[in-house]
Amino acid sequence: MCEANAYIIEESSEERLIMEAVDQVIPEEEGIRLVSIFGDQKFIRGYIHSLSLVDHKVYIRES
Amino acid sequence: MCEANAYIIEESSEERLIMEAVDQVIPEEEGIRLVSIFGDQKFIRGYIHSLSLVDHKVYIRES
Repeated sequence: MCEANAYIIEESSEERLIMEAVDQVIPEEEGIRLVSIFGDQKFIRGYIHSLSLVDHKVYIRES
Repeated sequence: MCEANAYIIEESSEERLIMEAVDQVIPEEEGIRLVSIFGDQKFIRGYIHSLSLVDHKVYIRES
């Protein structure tokens, strides 16, 4: 399985894990919806900043 | 390995494959840089639209 962990990049440049095992990231009107392989969902007011897929990492910045 | 294939979503909603085996997606001033597991690079004037990681898909929209 090739899900990834989603991290918010803080203004301090630190990474904060917000969801494990993310399958889908879906754009919505004011942000993005993360959906895990277990069906958990989380809405974030932000956008996908960058990816490091071999490391299973999705980086998000809040907007 | 958990790389993905990158597709541009056309205005017709069709998907056009632009790079296979993408590892990293890195934001740059006017777009994003895709880097494959083989070290190939491609710059796109666009942004990450959505992800479907279990299907190994990264969707990009041109800006």
